Amino acid sequence: MIRVKIVGAAGYGGAGITELLLQHPEAEIVSLIEREDIGAPLSKIYPHLQGFCDMPLLAEDDPRAAEPVDVVFYSTPDQVGMSAARAELAKGVKVIDYSGDFRFTTAEAYADYATRIGKNPVHASPDLLGTNAYGLAELHREEIRKASVVGNPGCFACSCILGLAPAAKGALVEPYSIICDCKTGVSGGGKKAAAGFHFPARYEQMNAYKLAGHQHVCEVEHELSALAGRDIKITFTTQVVPVCRGILSTLYGNLTAPMTEDEMLAVYREFYKDSPFVRVYGSTAPIGTLHVRGTNYCNLMVSVDARLNRLRVVSHIDNLMKGQAGSALQNMNLMFGLPETTGLARPGIYP
Amino acid sequence: MIRVKIVGAAGYGGAGITELLLQHPEAEIVSLIEREDIGAPLSKIYPHLQGFCDMPLLAEDDPRAAEPVDVVFYSTPDQVGMSAARAELAKGVKVIDYSGDFRFTTAEAYADYATRIGKNPVHASPDLLGTNAYGLAELHREEIRKASVVGNPGCFACSCILGLAPAAKGALVEPYSIICDCKTGVSGGGKKAAAGFHFPARYEQMNAYKLAGHQHVCEVEHELSALAGRDIKITFTTQVVPVCRGILSTLYGNLTAPMTEDEMLAVYREFYKDSPFVRVYGSTAPIGTLHVRGTNYCNLMVSVDARLNRLRVVSHIDNLMKGQAGSALQNMNLMFGLPETTGLARPGIYP
Amino acid sequence: MIRVKIVGAAGYGGAGITELLLQHPEAEIVSLIEREDIGAPLSKIYPHLQGFCDMPLLAEDDPRAAEPVDVVFYSTPDQVGMSAARAELAKGVKVIDYSGDFRFTTAEAYADYATRIGKNPVHASPDLLGTNAYGLAELHREEIRKASVVGNPGCFACSCILGLAPAAKGALVEPYSIICDCKTGVSGGGKKAAAGFHFPARYEQMNAYKLAGHQHVCEVEHELSALAGRDIKITFTTQVVPVCRGILSTLYGNLTAPMTEDEMLAVYREFYKDSPFVRVYGSTAPIGTLHVRGTNYCNLMVSVDARLNRLRVVSHIDNLMKGQAGSALQNMNLMFGLPETTGLARPGIYP
Amino acid sequence: MIRVKIVGAAGYGGAGITELLLQHPEAEIVSLIEREDIGAPLSKIYPHLQGFCDMPLLAEDDPRAAEPVDVVFYSTPDQVGMSAARAELAKGVKVIDYSGDFRFTTAEAYADYATRIGKNPVHASPDLLGTNAYGLAELHREEIRKASVVGNPGCFACSCILGLAPAAKGALVEPYSIICDCKTGVSGGGKKAAAGFHFPARYEQMNAYKLAGHQHVCEVEHELSALAGRDIKITFTTQVVPVCRGILSTLYGNLTAPMTEDEMLAVYREFYKDSPFVRVYGSTAPIGTLHVRGTNYCNLMVSVDARLNRLRVVSHIDNLMKGQAGSALQNMNLMFGLPETTGLARPGIYP
Repeated sequence: MIRVKIVGAAGYGGAGITELLLQHPEAEIVSLIEREDIGAPLSKIYPHLQGFCDMPLLAEDDPRAAEPVDVVFYSTPDQVGMSAARAELAKGVKVIDYSGDFRFTTAEAYADYATRIGKNPVHASPDLLGTNAYGLAELHREEIRKASVVGNPGCFACSCILGLAPAAKGALVEPYSIICDCKTGVSGGGKKAAAGFHFPARYEQMNAYKLAGHQHVCEVEHELSALAGRDIKITFTTQVVPVCRGILSTLYGNLTAPMTEDEMLAVYREFYKDSPFVRVYGSTAPIGTLHVRGTNYCNLMVSVDARLNRLRVVSHIDNLMKGQAGSALQNMNLMFGLPETTGLARPGIYP
Repeated sequence: MIRVKIVGAAGYGGAGITELLLQHPEAEIVSLIEREDIGAPLSKIYPHLQGFCDMPLLAEDDPRAAEPVDVVFYSTPDQVGMSAARAELAKGVKVIDYSGDFRFTTAEAYADYATRIGKNPVHASPDLLGTNAYGLAELHREEIRKASVVGNPGCFACSCILGLAPAAKGALVEPYSIICDCKTGVSGGGKKAAAGFHFPARYEQMNAYKLAGHQHVCEVEHELSALAGRDIKITFTTQVVPVCRGILSTLYGNLTAPMTEDEMLAVYREFYKDSPFVRVYGSTAPIGTLHVRGTNYCNLMVSVDARLNRLRVVSHIDNLMKGQAGSALQNMNLMFGLPETTGLARPGIYP
Repeated sequence: MIRVKIVGAAGYGGAGITELLLQHPEAEIVSLIEREDIGAPLSKIYPHLQGFCDMPLLAEDDPRAAEPVDVVFYSTPDQVGMSAARAELAKGVKVIDYSGDFRFTTAEAYADYATRIGKNPVHASPDLLGTNAYGLAELHREEIRKASVVGNPGCFACSCILGLAPAAKGALVEPYSIICDCKTGVSGGGKKAAAGFHFPARYEQMNAYKLAGHQHVCEVEHELSALAGRDIKITFTTQVVPVCRGILSTLYGNLTAPMTEDEMLAVYREFYKDSPFVRVYGSTAPIGTLHVRGTNYCNLMVSVDARLNRLRVVSHIDNLMKGQAGSALQNMNLMFGLPETTGLARPGIYP
Repeated sequence: MIRVKIVGAAGYGGAGITELLLQHPEAEIVSLIEREDIGAPLSKIYPHLQGFCDMPLLAEDDPRAAEPVDVVFYSTPDQVGMSAARAELAKGVKVIDYSGDFRFTTAEAYADYATRIGKNPVHASPDLLGTNAYGLAELHREEIRKASVVGNPGCFACSCILGLAPAAKGALVEPYSIICDCKTGVSGGGKKAAAGFHFPARYEQMNAYKLAGHQHVCEVEHELSALAGRDIKITFTTQVVPVCRGILSTLYGNLTAPMTEDEMLAVYREFYKDSPFVRVYGSTAPIGTLHVRGTNYCNLMVSVDARLNRLRVVSHIDNLMKGQAGSALQNMNLMFGLPETTGLARPGIYP
């Protein structure tokens, strides 16, 4: 059994990986670490877990937090995991971090990102950069298998990169023409109550925010540029709508040469032919975010606006699954030599 | 492996049992029967099942519908299963019916019910009555184990009976004082679009309906009377609120003798001590329907209004799980000698 | 023109009365008082008011807060208005208070209430008690017309009292048999973000709370007892469902003598024949809370469970209108000799 | 008083104009025409109108449908008003049509549109084309004042044209670079229940549809091309999210020359300086669709992605108001020489 510690266990990211691990045939949760509600069983915070995970939340310095494990999930804000990981790695423990700390493999790329989010641009463990992998399995399966530390992708970034990777790789779209119009459900903002996520202020509300630049833009540009082998810059719009789970990203790019929808579909299907969690559809498929809710799937609807020679891809994920805990578990599976679908091959429930 | 046929496979009840069977270690789906969309793979109707259940919907008279199975689920309206079951039973196939057809064990009780719902009061297979069991495992575990045909409970009825059974059994409440104030999510109305469930007409709407008498009242009175050993009649109010899954039933009854909340809690805990899907809480537990969504649990919050010597129980279920497909699978497990939790021991996802 | 000051202007109660006063032909807003966001225009907090109410929020001690007015609305928590009202009243200003401070006309009744909510039971201005009126126009129209200070009813209380008053007055129900099963939308909890009202925790959640006793029970029992001329005690259950605006209260009571639904309807219609904001319906009317949203109406569905000789009334209001700002304006109209419908005779919008 | 007939009175478009006219100081409703529910009072279909509009729905050929009026609103599907209008116009009655029938002023432009929606491309009253006006007051105020027949804009089109008109007029964006990413609430689909708008299938669902081309694209291209004085083609994406009322359209175009956000804001503010229902905001304004719900406002958030020299405008309307009945009433006001804000100057309610 793979022994697991979860840091930041009582947030949505921690609860999400807990739910998954409880049904994983090869893993067991050893300890749950938090900063608040210390001593409370996780099932007190999340009553649905009663009888499934009644382990107490432990403070970081609790002796029980030091029980040997094989992997730690850091479901923590930026610049927590980057410092804490070192000690774990030194013990041979693998690390999967949800924040931006290990999403970039050079100090320069990290500094770019950190500057954008208003944080100290100097990485606390620069020597680890280069040994880490960007945790989007569909693009970095082999690096993840070998890495000791993985930076789990941002939720928006995951939906955009998966939706554009095949086109970027083939240099099928103009590098400065890409627009990512992203809509997220409210759970993307986490468990903490906030004015904009208060039910009465949200139930009938759609709004755009952070127009000046959302932090996930860095990963998207970084990954797409790497795929294309040239600089790609995107216009990135983030919007919140009153659903709980789900990201729908509508992605646009001018084609470098005319292509039909069928040709484009062939490119996408080929690209993802070995990726069990990506499903590729044409432009008339009757699908939406509800069809990936609670699952690790990314459903892509590929279309070409022939009048204007423009690619348009609609990317659907569950922000808490493929956009967070699901990708994290997929990464864990790869890091421990398991099939990447272990504990994840589930269709969700409907409606 | 238990071989399964599902009749009415494309409704919510069919999709629900399909989702569960796909993850059941001892069962496999053999055929899906429907009246519409014949030939379409189930995953065309329910895209989340793509790759999980791409079997075609078959007409009743399709030769493939006759493949041998061990059990049939009838997720069909009243008075379908009561006729069709006979042929299956004759072949030694077990039957689980979602409608009212097999919820009563005498022709008289059935006639009462059928009259109330405006149907022919004569049961089509009266000889089968008495060999059937009412499919609420917590009350009829042994009968279900032995039965060849089980009538799955109504969703409202399930929530009310579980919430009142311990008190009824002990004759702790006055028999004509019971009020069941039930609120259901919209999925209880099924897959078919209807004016009252149209999103714009529903998203901000609460309403009571069928005040003259909902059909589930018969089962509730029948089961509670049997437990109490005397006639029980209830006032039963059904209401719809804008959630998808969930029933919250608030149940009231005048105590026959003063009891404290702690005493009442002890009665409930004792009653359900061998029922893995019932969780009993006191009156201040911070729980709601979201904590049972997607699961087979019934969470009961027990309180006593000491000023008025009145029992008040708040019963929480997922109407499509414990209120439908979950109970159906629990019954299948019992009928085939499996632990009743097989394929059902899951906490759901949150939020 | 009636000159108005609003204290607590930036909460939902303040915004609600502002929206109404902006369209009132005989009133004008003179000043808006708040404790936070001082100096900000109200339309910064509520962008829908841009161009309609760009007045700044003033601190209590701002000189502009002392501009002469004819009436003050206190949209403030308990025990604010009871102290502040005196100075206003001394200047001949009328007072309408949203809290429990002036809902009772004796020091004893207030003490009962204050004890229940865990506050100092000694009223700060006991000499004012007796000069005040309980602000439910349908029951206290004449007292309100003469009063200088009015205690606006609680939202749950308003729905329950209106739903039971005709039966209570006629002593048609047993005094200890009454049960109020109340469901509220989330806006009843106010503007402040809270864990239980966070969109992801609420969108698919129904739950009961404060089973030990909600503070509004005092007003309900007080008013019903006064109507009946004998002591009435109720079981009172409060529940939250994922709508924004709306209370649906289902009210039960054992009839003292058998009555038909038609007889009961006649009693209700007679009782409310001069109350323009109460509409009475029979038990099959296809109505719900969406049909009173944004309006000052209370729609009552009256039914009798003939089998059990029990009255059942479903009461529908908008908690922010008839349950708060609408009643407050109706009270202002009465206090200033205007028709009570002035500025309130609107149907709302649908859907 | 302006005497009004409404054809298609029981749909959302009919109910919307009814709600507005009931509060309009210069208009009165004379007759309500429908194809279903003939004889029923409108308030039976819409209980919130009880006491406000209890007039019966009349069949087209009912004698009472011929009572003289000054204006007819056709809240009807395509190709109804184009035939029926002639007789009304002959009597000197003005016509406002909600469909595409009178949105184009040449037979060619109409044929283009009709072809796209799969209808007969030959207009039934080609002689009327040229006498009509496109009913977007902000662009065609003077034509509307003089027109006898007005084609009310499509809801998506209204949001996009208002969001892009200032940039198009100044030729500030490349003509083939424009992308309109539109999200609508469900009420845009009308009153009729449909599988995709069934509450359980919609409450947690976002999806794109009609990627091959939504019919509103014609008006948008037609109007923008006219403003720019050159051919403009757009990529147009329509998406549905689980809100009831609201369209949020995010509009992109490559700048023909670099501009700052402040410069662009100045262009927009100048363009709309005489348009009372358009409010212009910078890119950090905390606004969303909830702030225009129930109102005739279009709120525009203007931003420039300086890195990529790209305009991005977020346009917010209520699809049933500015996108339908509100614009219709604004047009009526103009056609009858009233201030365009008459009966429309309202902030809506929040939350």
